[in-house]
Parts: sequence; structure tokens; C-alpha cells
Amino acid sequence: MDINVTPRSGVMTAPAMRPNPSTVRDITLAEHYRSVRRFTESLCEPLAPDDFVIQSMTDASPIKWHLAHTTWFFETFVLARSIPGYRPFHSLFNFLFNSYYDAAGPRWPRPQRGLLSRPTVTEIFQYRHAIDERVDSLIAARAGDDAAAILLLGLHHEQQHQELMITDLKHGWSANPLHPVYRDALPDTGAPPPMRWLDFPEALVWIGHEGRDFAFDNEAPRHRAFAARFSIASRLATNAEYLAFIADGGYARPELWLSDGWAARNARGWDAPLYWHRDGSKWSVFTMAGLRPLNPAEPVCHVSYYEADAFARWAGARLPTEVEWETAAAGNAIAGHFIESGRFHPAAAAAPDDRGPLHQLYGDVWQWTASPYLAYPGYRPPPGALGEYNGKFMCNQMVLRGASCATPRSHARRTYRNFFPPDARWQFSGIRLARDPD
Amino acid sequence: MDINVTPRSGVMTAPAMRPNPSTVRDITLAEHYRSVRRFTESLCEPLAPDDFVIQSMTDASPIKWHLAHTTWFFETFVLARSIPGYRPFHSLFNFLFNSYYDAAGPRWPRPQRGLLSRPTVTEIFQYRHAIDERVDSLIAARAGDDAAAILLLGLHHEQQHQELMITDLKHGWSANPLHPVYRDALPDTGAPPPMRWLDFPEALVWIGHEGRDFAFDNEAPRHRAFAARFSIASRLATNAEYLAFIADGGYARPELWLSDGWAARNARGWDAPLYWHRDGSKWSVFTMAGLRPLNPAEPVCHVSYYEADAFARWAGARLPTEVEWETAAAGNAIAGHFIESGRFHPAAAAAPDDRGPLHQLYGDVWQWTASPYLAYPGYRPPPGALGEYNGKFMCNQMVLRGASCATPRSHARRTYRNFFPPDARWQFSGIRLARDPD
Amino acid sequence: MDINVTPRSGVMTAPAMRPNPSTVRDITLAEHYRSVRRFTESLCEPLAPDDFVIQSMTDASPIKWHLAHTTWFFETFVLARSIPGYRPFHSLFNFLFNSYYDAAGPRWPRPQRGLLSRPTVTEIFQYRHAIDERVDSLIAARAGDDAAAILLLGLHHEQQHQELMITDLKHGWSANPLHPVYRDALPDTGAPPPMRWLDFPEALVWIGHEGRDFAFDNEAPRHRAFAARFSIASRLATNAEYLAFIADGGYARPELWLSDGWAARNARGWDAPLYWHRDGSKWSVFTMAGLRPLNPAEPVCHVSYYEADAFARWAGARLPTEVEWETAAAGNAIAGHFIESGRFHPAAAAAPDDRGPLHQLYGDVWQWTASPYLAYPGYRPPPGALGEYNGKFMCNQMVLRGASCATPRSHARRTYRNFFPPDARWQFSGIRLARDPD
Amino acid sequence: MDINVTPRSGVMTAPAMRPNPSTVRDITLAEHYRSVRRFTESLCEPLAPDDFVIQSMTDASPIKWHLAHTTWFFETFVLARSIPGYRPFHSLFNFLFNSYYDAAGPRWPRPQRGLLSRPTVTEIFQYRHAIDERVDSLIAARAGDDAAAILLLGLHHEQQHQELMITDLKHGWSANPLHPVYRDALPDTGAPPPMRWLDFPEALVWIGHEGRDFAFDNEAPRHRAFAARFSIASRLATNAEYLAFIADGGYARPELWLSDGWAARNARGWDAPLYWHRDGSKWSVFTMAGLRPLNPAEPVCHVSYYEADAFARWAGARLPTEVEWETAAAGNAIAGHFIESGRFHPAAAAAPDDRGPLHQLYGDVWQWTASPYLAYPGYRPPPGALGEYNGKFMCNQMVLRGASCATPRSHARRTYRNFFPPDARWQFSGIRLARDPD
Repeated sequence: MDINVTPRSGVMTAPAMRPNPSTVRDITLAEHYRSVRRFTESLCEPLAPDDFVIQSMTDASPIKWHLAHTTWFFETFVLARSIPGYRPFHSLFNFLFNSYYDAAGPRWPRPQRGLLSRPTVTEIFQYRHAIDERVDSLIAARAGDDAAAILLLGLHHEQQHQELMITDLKHGWSANPLHPVYRDALPDTGAPPPMRWLDFPEALVWIGHEGRDFAFDNEAPRHRAFAARFSIASRLATNAEYLAFIADGGYARPELWLSDGWAARNARGWDAPLYWHRDGSKWSVFTMAGLRPLNPAEPVCHVSYYEADAFARWAGARLPTEVEWETAAAGNAIAGHFIESGRFHPAAAAAPDDRGPLHQLYGDVWQWTASPYLAYPGYRPPPGALGEYNGKFMCNQMVLRGASCATPRSHARRTYRNFFPPDARWQFSGIRLARDPD
Repeated sequence: MDINVTPRSGVMTAPAMRPNPSTVRDITLAEHYRSVRRFTESLCEPLAPDDFVIQSMTDASPIKWHLAHTTWFFETFVLARSIPGYRPFHSLFNFLFNSYYDAAGPRWPRPQRGLLSRPTVTEIFQYRHAIDERVDSLIAARAGDDAAAILLLGLHHEQQHQELMITDLKHGWSANPLHPVYRDALPDTGAPPPMRWLDFPEALVWIGHEGRDFAFDNEAPRHRAFAARFSIASRLATNAEYLAFIADGGYARPELWLSDGWAARNARGWDAPLYWHRDGSKWSVFTMAGLRPLNPAEPVCHVSYYEADAFARWAGARLPTEVEWETAAAGNAIAGHFIESGRFHPAAAAAPDDRGPLHQLYGDVWQWTASPYLAYPGYRPPPGALGEYNGKFMCNQMVLRGASCATPRSHARRTYRNFFPPDARWQFSGIRLARDPD
Repeated sequence: MDINVTPRSGVMTAPAMRPNPSTVRDITLAEHYRSVRRFTESLCEPLAPDDFVIQSMTDASPIKWHLAHTTWFFETFVLARSIPGYRPFHSLFNFLFNSYYDAAGPRWPRPQRGLLSRPTVTEIFQYRHAIDERVDSLIAARAGDDAAAILLLGLHHEQQHQELMITDLKHGWSANPLHPVYRDALPDTGAPPPMRWLDFPEALVWIGHEGRDFAFDNEAPRHRAFAARFSIASRLATNAEYLAFIADGGYARPELWLSDGWAARNARGWDAPLYWHRDGSKWSVFTMAGLRPLNPAEPVCHVSYYEADAFARWAGARLPTEVEWETAAAGNAIAGHFIESGRFHPAAAAAPDDRGPLHQLYGDVWQWTASPYLAYPGYRPPPGALGEYNGKFMCNQMVLRGASCATPRSHARRTYRNFFPPDARWQFSGIRLARDPD
Repeated sequence: MDINVTPRSGVMTAPAMRPNPSTVRDITLAEHYRSVRRFTESLCEPLAPDDFVIQSMTDASPIKWHLAHTTWFFETFVLARSIPGYRPFHSLFNFLFNSYYDAAGPRWPRPQRGLLSRPTVTEIFQYRHAIDERVDSLIAARAGDDAAAILLLGLHHEQQHQELMITDLKHGWSANPLHPVYRDALPDTGAPPPMRWLDFPEALVWIGHEGRDFAFDNEAPRHRAFAARFSIASRLATNAEYLAFIADGGYARPELWLSDGWAARNARGWDAPLYWHRDGSKWSVFTMAGLRPLNPAEPVCHVSYYEADAFARWAGARLPTEVEWETAAAGNAIAGHFIESGRFHPAAAAAPDDRGPLHQLYGDVWQWTASPYLAYPGYRPPPGALGEYNGKFMCNQMVLRGASCATPRSHARRTYRNFFPPDARWQFSGIRLARDPD
């Protein structure tokens, strides 16, 4: 496998991605691999052994499972496909660490990942390092373009799990009355920029990814869409604005909510974003620095689509569509606060390098859109198990755009389509408003 | 209230509809009202007293509840709004027969509608006739355009419930080992027309309802959408075609299914459409004429969105979008088999007057589209309780187009947007394929 | 079958009963049969057709199902066993109306009895009358002692269902906001007798049924048991006494409750007996005469074992054991208010003919004992399906003694063992206290 | 606190126990305390850090929770009561490690014990050792008889948790496809003794604990009971005998089962004891030495009451009552295989010192009795939180007698009443038959 990867045939040879030789030319794939893998492990440094094991809900996974699953991905889709007669590290790990790939065989039930005391955390780190050595050897042996392409996919996959490790850990700790602390409290970044409405004219626009940089299959094909005139907010909605929604009875007025949202609010007793606690008139919020006073200047975070939608309706606005968000984001740099900074918390003020007509596009919170997660016109998932990576989830989920403070910097891009069910709240998800011009 | 209704201000005065004076000019509104109400009651003629009471699942309602709820709609939104100091027929009926209007106050829980032995069926018919008299008087007194508009909405609402009465009754009877019979078996309509692919060019098209004929609020505003080239099937998918899907392992191959669909299939043990029974190699199907041998020539019916989607993927095709369906249906007459014929069963051959490039658009089965149910750009629900009619359901549901054999003829139209969750199977829902041209 | 029944071999030939020829000598079995069957139907006179159909919870059954099931019992265990080549009334009725007899074959699921709109109520009455004719003929033909014995069992079985029809109807109506009325309100019977403690000395006592009168198999064998000294209350606990328990925080003090009882209380939000409603400081109770003010003088009714146990602990007492109750009841006449009187409500004062050291033993409410429902030493259920009548339920249930206002007079006796799970509240179940002497 | 404990006032001063000065005279209480506490920790030696954290079902608890809860017991009921102004080790540990004592305040929900990654295992060992030091100091300070009595109760409590740690760990590991191993495989102990029926005559017997040795409150008061003639099996039922039950369709014949048992069997798909696996005609069983071939000679283990009851009915026998078991066990030494031997597995042959008319009474498996868990006549739980230790569970559970291979030797005695719900299978529970003599 050559470090200067030049994939020959796009989607067919590299199922769920399209690597760009010009990007990888200047760094070695081996270095990139080591860097991503090491960063995953560095995220575990503040953890006690106990923290690797627990699973706080079905949607979340134990940290040790993330560590093993991302490794399994490389073993299954890179090593086993590239090395003739490949002998798996352990005969049961395919069963234990396959996430949702039906084509890869049966698997341990997701809700029971937290019951696996064995293999131990120690054994899982041994698994990681053994696979790392084999991947190193494979890269050194210049295996082939397809393997390199899937390897790159695996690194983006691992970056997705880096964010999930933080969100799952936060959820697991949030219920613990001891309020565990991952890092020190952050400095206050001051007031947010003033909110302005940016107007965009009616247009037939091009949407989706094109080119040789990496992108997931669901970002393609690039295609045209008609967008009527719209306005979009120059920054994210803040905690102060969300507090006004609460104070105005936002959680008690069904006319503001979708029917399914109102049912979810009632069934689960929602009266504030996830992790918020009220003590009389004082609000606090559970963060990676423990329980902290709520900062009104920060972007509101950990809201479901239903809450984002109700807030927008209350504000006389709506959520942007995917097409609107991607159109509006054109010309903005990929800049903000990312996981590498260790923040894991949305910032009030934009990052210094976040320059452009729109602020806080990336690096604070994912932004719910009004768009259900659907295939782009002409989309075909790649054949085989990797075709399950994105395609089979295109139902009952909503798209989020941008990137959060728990997203790796190199993972963020304008065409990225994140997606979660409308009741999900444990991701770093927030709100950017849009509206129809008068 | 004049029989020649001329609404003055469209959406604002007639919240969820836009009546067309040219339609109602030639018949009196009073006659229209009586006709729809009588037809509802005529649908009950084959029933035993017991059949009015049962509720076979949360999604379905007892027949007696439908009879009362449609009456409550007129009482609440027409009589109580038009008659100063209006005195309700019964103080508790608003609580018992409000379906889902939060703005109309608290309500009896939907899953417990089948526990209401009181009011009795006899009392509910008394309620109907008392309200009918009051509505008659109101019409005779020429109450006003708004009342007339809502009255017309109420009639379309009652027509929706005519179809639901049939689907709910069918569901309730389907589990009964005595296989109750509603009507005689139908004559065979012969072979379906051959299936052809009809091609449509790329276009910026206009979608949605415009004009003075009645339409629900969710069919507007009329707006532009970009449609790439597409092909659509000239007729519905048949039982024979669906049997080939089953024979090819369609229900055992996860790669054909959406993830949520595969989970639903497993959780509920689906291995055929609802109401199908296999006895060795012989298939039968529960119909309104009892249990009958499956006719391979008929359109497949009672499939969920998940099954329709899996079938389409298996067939190398996909489901059409709303935009594609509505574009393709242009120029076809609203013709087919409707509830007035007493069929309640999709027919193999098209109805004699079903002429146009596409067959079986209306009057056999609703056709699942690939489009989630969303607001059209610029959509605003009307204020007040009637704003809940459609708007709050715009999440987690898929649009169906066309009309079924249980739809009233005057209720079918090209821009009609029916919608159900992707796992719903008890409606007369079937499949029309689409695909991207080569 | 002779009307002067003389069973030859007791348990072996008449599995679950032991008829007493001296009892049946003076009336014809045919008359007894007709009388019980007619009384069942007379209980339905105040009902609307709708009332026969509903099933308000899994533990309850629709009235129409009771009417059919009791008929099925005679058809299955008397007719089909006595008549060679017997042809069932309907091939599916064994499936539909078998309650819980595994040996009698598969059956319609209990929680779905309320979904059976067919057979109709009219058809079920036809079924009853057809079976009645066949039983009449069988009796006239003097079929045999075994058949007569099972016929007598069937009549006691139908009497059990007479009480269940009332309790199930009451439960179904109780949730209906229209508060249906079965009969007129009852006259007040005045104040209860004063409560005294009656003391019984330590003794080795004989317990259980013996002799030729009818009894269920679970009342035998008669056997010895050791009872230490005990005291028992001369009358039932009253609503006034129970109100004092509530006022003293009875439902908020876990130390008064069994662990499972406290969990049930919390899970279901119990804060008063079933059917009680509080409006400020005023209590009302749903009765067969609709919603009525609570009468403090009446025996408390519709409490679970858990509540009875907690009340007793709060009162510094306990519930009596079966052995104690049966010992104490010796010498008291079987007198009280029974279903034939149409009361269906416990009375404050004892019935005029309720003379003995203990009042209100029969005819007001069943009395929870501290005894789990177990087999008496040496108990063997009869072979075959009728062995399932009682034996298989001897786990997880508590015994109630006495008889209620919904029990037929000829069905009450001192050795009768009623049994329900400790969380059941919809039966006419109340409290008689006991205690250890100082 | 003096090491020669002489409690002055029995139940009132030492709520749930009655220590025997003659037993504790020769060893110091401090040594006894250290010994029990050390043994608990020694049981953890084979565990990986991950094994302390998981909770495999609501009935089980994480090992770390057991370690903390047993410590909390001493802190709450000994230290905090004996030391004026006692300052808790951590303000939240009462909330986190209270098991079920309502009087001790609110508590962390039992089903979520497996979500507590904090406090860590390391911190919990620190907690143990800190409390151990304080208890040591308290003993050295000769605090008082009541404290000594509760301390002794706490040690028996911790011994109960030693057995639970093994059963919970086994359950947690049993689902793991890696089949973790706690200890080496055991030597085969050969064939069981032949089974004989031992007959006992009718008698008025004394039952329950008396004297100064430790016993739980539920073993008293000693009282009389009448026992008819009975026979009891000289040894436990074996795997071979249970295999014959299975081969004879034991799990497919409802007539052998209690109604609730049959429902449990169907709902959970039981077709063999817990931890048994069938591969064709070969059976294996998960043990603390991993997955092992089933030994037909060993006592059957990990059966529910329902299975024990069905097996007994199939065998033409029944389960013994508590009274029968305790009567039959008189004169047998407390001997067998206990947790100190590290077996954790029932043995085929009796232990060398297990001499007496009955074999395998102690040290192999607990033996289900036919007796529901009830208060003995005259039983009064002690006041306060310790009154919740046993009393509030006296409903819906069945008594088991004897002791298992996971019971500490000094914890076993003839009057011991273990109790579990009839569907529990994860304890070391087996079968000793009884029957009525011919």
C-alpha cells in the first residue's frame, strides 16, 4: 500500500468514500492512522477503570466497546479483506464488536453491551495494539488502493466514535449524583455576537459533495434543488433565548409542538434541555467539568428536534432545511472549537478564526434542520456490508448540520450530514433559526 | 348561510380549506350535508350491535366512536362557533369525542375508546340526528361563509372517517376466527394491464393545490420543485409480483430493508402483507367477503412503507416521490373504484373510466411515496384548534398518494396528501414503482 | 339421569365435587339447572347491548363471554362426555370459550376477549338456549351419576360467574365518566353493630369440608391443624375506620406495608380503595347505583390484600388465618345479603337473620385472610381437565373467606375458599381483623 | 464493647438477632469481624476490574455494590448509632448503598446499580478499610451490647452477601460467550448415595429457633405445628433424574405445572434449568470453572420453585413443607461443602462429615419447600429500619431450607429460612422430594 493513495474507480472500489490523493499526498497514511488511533486513546486518560464498562442507555455504548468496535472495523473491512487467509485476533470478537452490519453476521445485542465484563479493558487495549501492528504492516506492504480507501473510511469512522465516546460518557456520568469531572472548568468566552437575519434569494442550487476529498456516501450525488427565498440566523440560539421560551410556558403549550414531540415531552417529563437542573430560580447544567451554573450567553445544547422545532415556532421562525443550511454556509471557513481543544462545551463567543457571514457554524453544537434524512436523488449505497454504513438508516431520522465541540476538526465539512431520531438529546445538538422573508 | 358559498378571504376565514363556489353552486349545501351523513350511516347497515363497540388496536376506533366523533366535529366547530350561547347536546361529549385537538380541551384516552359501553350506539345515533337537525336549521338560517367553509371541511372530515370505519372494521374482524362477512364476494375483474415504464424529463414543476375547489391546508401553498428525470410504473404492483418477492426470500434478507423496517419485521413476525394467510403453498386473504383465495392479478394491498420500500429495492426500483407522483398524475381523470361501489377491495383490471397514461391511480389502493410528510414551503396552519387538523403531524410519517377502494369518489384528487407512519398496514396501502432512467 | 342423585364413588367419579343426595332429593336437578341459568340471564336485564361486549382489563371478561363460557362448561364436561358421538353446537366455540383448561385444547387469548364482536350477543343467547334444551333432554334421559355430579359442579361454576359478571360489569362501568346505573340507590341500613374481640383458645382443630353437601375439591380433605389462642373481630372494618387509616397517612407510610404492597401502591398510585373519589374533603364511591356519597358506616370494600394487611398493621392487629376464620365461624348461620336481593353493595348493619357471635360473615364482603392459597394436606386434584379447576392456581394467591353481596345465597358456606392475587381490588373484598391475645 | 457479649434483653435490644455468648466467648468479636470482612475480599481475588461493575439483571447487583453496601450496613446501623455526632464517610453513600430500608431514607434505584462507575472500585475498597478501622476502634472502646448484637447481625448480613456475590457473578458471566473462569474444575465426587424414603409419624412438633446462638428474627418465635405422617427423600434429586423429567416431556406438559409456572415457562422459554445448554443430545452447564459437561450424578441446581414443583408432581411426589424439612433434619450435623472450600458447585457424593439419616442437607443446594414465606405465629419485627430486614418480604415468596455450596459454613443451621420468589433460578436452588405415605 502506497502512502500516496490514488484510488482508481471511485465509489465502486472504495464503497463509502472518495479519498483525495492531493490531501493524503503530503502526509503518510500510516501517520494519519497512528494519529487518529492515538487520539482515541488519549481521550481515555481521565477515566477510571469503572468508567470504561457502563452503558447508561441503549443508544449509548461503553467506552471499552467503542475502543473494540473501531478496531474491529479495521480488522474486518481492511485486514480480513486484504490479507489472504487472515486469522482473526479472536474468534468471538466479530460477534461481540459488530455494531449493526447484518452482512457481517450475527451480533451481541446492543442493549447488553454494558454486561460484557469480558474481554477486559486491558484485553481490549491489547486487541487495539495488535491490530495497529497488523495495519502498520499492511500499509508498509503497499496493499492496494481499495484497502487504503477503506482504511481512510475507518479513520473517519473512528473519528465519529471519538465524538460518541464523549457524548456517551457524558450521559453515563450525568445521572451519577457524584457529578464526575473530566476536565477543569473552561474560561468564559464572553458575549455572543448579535443575531442578524441573513437573506438568500430564490435559486436553483447545487447540493452535496463533489471532488476528491473524503466524504461519506450519503453526501453524494451532488445534485440540483430549488430553494425559495429564505433568511437564516447569523448565530446559534442561546441559553438566554431558550430560557425565555421556558419562561413563556414553552413546555406547557401544545400548540407549539409537533404531536409526536408533545407526546415525547409528556411521556418523559421534559421541561428543559437534557442536563439542565433547576433549583428555585437558579439553573445549573451538568458539563464535563461537573455541575456548573448555566451561562445564558452560550448556545443552547442537548435539545431534541422536537424542542428545537417548538422553540423555533415560539420564536416566529422555523428550522432551516438542509438545502438552506448548505447554501448559507458556502464561503465560510471550517473553523471553530473542536474536540482537540478539550472543550466539549459550546462557547458563547465565536472562535477567533470563525470568520464569515455566519458564526458558530462548526465547533459548538450540531444544528437540527427541518429535513428528514433521505437519500439524495440517484444515491446508491455501495455493495456489501459497507453499504449498510449509512443507507439503511434513511428513515425516521432528522439531519443535523455543522459540527460540535466534540467533533474532530478534520472531520467537519459543509456537506456533512449527521442524523439522529427526533427525540435524541444526548448529542451536542442545538438550534440555528431560519424564516421565510416577509 | 347561502347555498352559493363565496368565501371572501381564503385561508384566513376558512382555516383548513378553500371551498369552490362553482362546485357547490348546483347542489345545496344542505343536500350535500345530508348525503354525506346518510352515507356514513348506510355503511353501518351490515353490522350487528356488537360490531359498533370493539376497538382492535390503539390506531383503530370503534364504529360508534367514529359516528359520534364526526358529529362532535360539526357541533364543536360549526354549531358552537355560529350559534351564540350554544348549549351542547351533552356536557361530556366534548371530552369523550374530541380526537386530538389539544385546543379543544382534555379528552378520553385513545387506547380506551373500546371501553365506552356508554353512551350506547342508540344514544349516539340520537346524537347524530339531533345535531343534523341543528345543522339543517343553521344552513336554513344562512349563517355565514366561515361556517359554510368549516361545514364543508367537516364533510370532508367525515368522508375520511368513512374510509377509516371500513379499515378499522376490517382490522377488528380480521382477528376473529369466525371470519365475519360484510358483503358478497366480488366478481373477478380479470387480468391487470401490462406494466410499462413511463418517462418524465427533468423539470422545475409546480406542486400543490390552487384554485377554488376544496383542498386541505396541507396541499398548499402551490410551489415550485425541481424534479430530475424519472420513470414511473403505469400500474400498481400485483400480488403475483409480491409473491415473487416473498418466494425470493424478501422477508429474510436484511439487505433489502431499511434498518427500522427490518426491526419492525422481526419484532412483529411479518412474513407477508397484513391479512394474508398461508396454508402450505396456498395463500388466502381476509377480505370484507370473509377469507378468500388470494388473487395474483390484484394489486398488493395492506403493506407497510417498510415492505413497499423493500419490495421496490428487490425489484431494482424505488418508490416515487410526492413530486414525481403528482407530476406523473397530471392529465389523468379522477376515476376508479370507490367506496360508493361497495367494493372495499382493489381490483385487478382498471375501472372502465380509468383512462390515461397511468392506470389505477385512484380507487384501488393508496400508494406509498418515498416522501416524508412535511409542510410545503411557506405553509402556515390556520389559527386555533383547526390548525391541529394536519400541521402537528408533520413528522415521522410518510405520504401516500392517490385514493383507495374505500375512499369516497368526491374525496379523491391529484394533490391529496394522505399520511401514515411507516409501519402502518391496516389502511388500503399498496405500491407503485418508480426508478431513475438509465 | 335420576333426580335423586346418589354418587357412588366420591372424588374419583365426580372429580371436583361431592354432591349430597339429601340436598337434591327434594328438588329436581332440572329445576335447579333452570333456576341457576335463568338467574344468570336475569342479571343482564338492565344492560344495553353495548354493555355485553366490553372488557375493561385482562382480569375481567365481557358479559357475553361469561354467558358463553358457562354454557361451554356444560357442553364440554356434561354433554360431550355423556352423549356418544356428540356434535358440538359450533366447531369454534371450544376455542373461543374455554377459559384456562389446557387439557381442553388451545384457546382464544384472555386479554382479547373484548375484541370478539362475533358471535354476537344474540347468537350467544341462542347458544345458551340450545344447550339448555340438550341438558334438559339429558336429565330427562337419566344419564348417570357422574354426569349429574358434574352438572352440579357446573351450576356452582355458573354461580361463581354470576358474581364475576357483577364485578366485571362494575369495573367496566367505573371508568366511564357517564357513571352508568344498574339499579336504584339502596336504603341506608343504619349503624353497624359495635366491634368486639372474640377470643378463642389454643386448640387442635378440624378444618375443611366433609359430608355429602356440595363443596369444591379445594375444601378437602378435612384435616387437623394447630391453632394458638387468637381473637377475632365481631364485625367487618368500616369505611369510617378506613378513613382514619387514610387520614393517619396510611398510604404514605412504608413501614405499614409489605414490600410488594408498597411497590404496588406506588406503581399504581393507590391512595384509597378502588372506586373511591375524593373531592376536597368529601368522598364519593362508584356503586351499581352510580356515584354516591361514601357511607362511613358501611364495611370497607374493594381493597387489595396489601391494603387490608397495611390497615391491620396500622390498627395494631393482623388478618386472621384461614384456620382461625373457619374456627371462629363455626356455629354461625349462613345468612346475610346476597346477590338475589339485588344489593351488590355491603350493608352497614347486619341482615336480620345474621345471628351469631360474629356478624357480617356472609353477604357483605369477602374477607382477606393471612393465608396463601395452598393445597390442604393430602389434596389430590381430580384427573383430567377438571383437575385444573382449582389445583393449578395454588401459588401467589391469598385466600378470602365468607361471601359477598354479589354471591348467590346457596353458594356460600363456612369452608368455602375464595382466592385472588394480593393486588386484586375489583372483587367485593374487605377486612375482618384478628389479633394475638395479650 | 466487651468481647464476651452478653445481651441483656433479647429482641428488644438486638432487633433482628439473638447472639449467643457461649459462641463468641472464645474468639474476639474483633477477630470475627476481621475474618468475615477479609473473606469477602478474598472472594474478589480472581476478578478483573471490569467484573466489579456489571449488573446483569435487576435481581443481581454489581460486586462493587455488594462491597459497599455491606460496609454501609456497619456504618449506618453500628457506627452512626453508637458514636455521638458521627460524621459519615461520604454524604452520598447512604443514598447510593442503602438497599431497601425505607426508614433509612431515599435510595438509588436498584435496576440502575450497574450504572454507577463512581465511586470507583478503588474508592469502595478505601471505604471498606476506613469503616473497618472505625469498627475496630469501636470494638476496642467496648461500646455496648446493642452495638455488639447489631455488629453480629451485620456479619451474618455480610455472609448472606458473600453468597449473593457468587450467584450474581455467576449470572453476569453466564451470558458472556467467552465463558469466564473463576476457579479450576473440581474433582468428581463419584456417585450419589442411593435414594431412600424416610418416614416420619404424625406429630405436634416444635418449630423455629430458640436459644442463644445467632438466628434471624424470622426464625422465631418457636412454636407448635401439627404435621401429619410424611416421607422425605434421603438425598437431593440428581441431574440424571431431572434429565428423565425433561426426556418425558416435562417442559411440554401443562398438567404437571402450576398455572403461574406454566406461564413463566412459556414467557421465558424455559426448557431446562438455568445455565444448561443442549448441543444435540449432549448437555453442558455453565459453572464457575466455565462451560462443563453435565454430570448426571450431581444434584440438580438452578431450578425455580415452579420447576421443582413440576418435577415433584411428575415424580409422583411433592415438595416438603418447612415443618417437615425442619422435623426431618433434626439430629443431622451441619456438615457439607461450603463456600470456604471454593467449590461453588453441588457435589454428587455427600461430604465425608455429612452423616445422618438425611444426606446433602447442607452445602450443596438450597431446597425449595412447599411453604410460602410467612411470619411465624406471634412474630413481631423489631422496631425501626432493621425491622425491614425480613418482615416486609413475607408475601409472594417461597421458603428454601438447608444451605448451598456458596453458603458460609458458620451461616448454615437447621432453622434457617431462605426465601425467593417462585420464578427465581439464579440461586443455588435444588430439589429434595417428599410424599404422603401410602
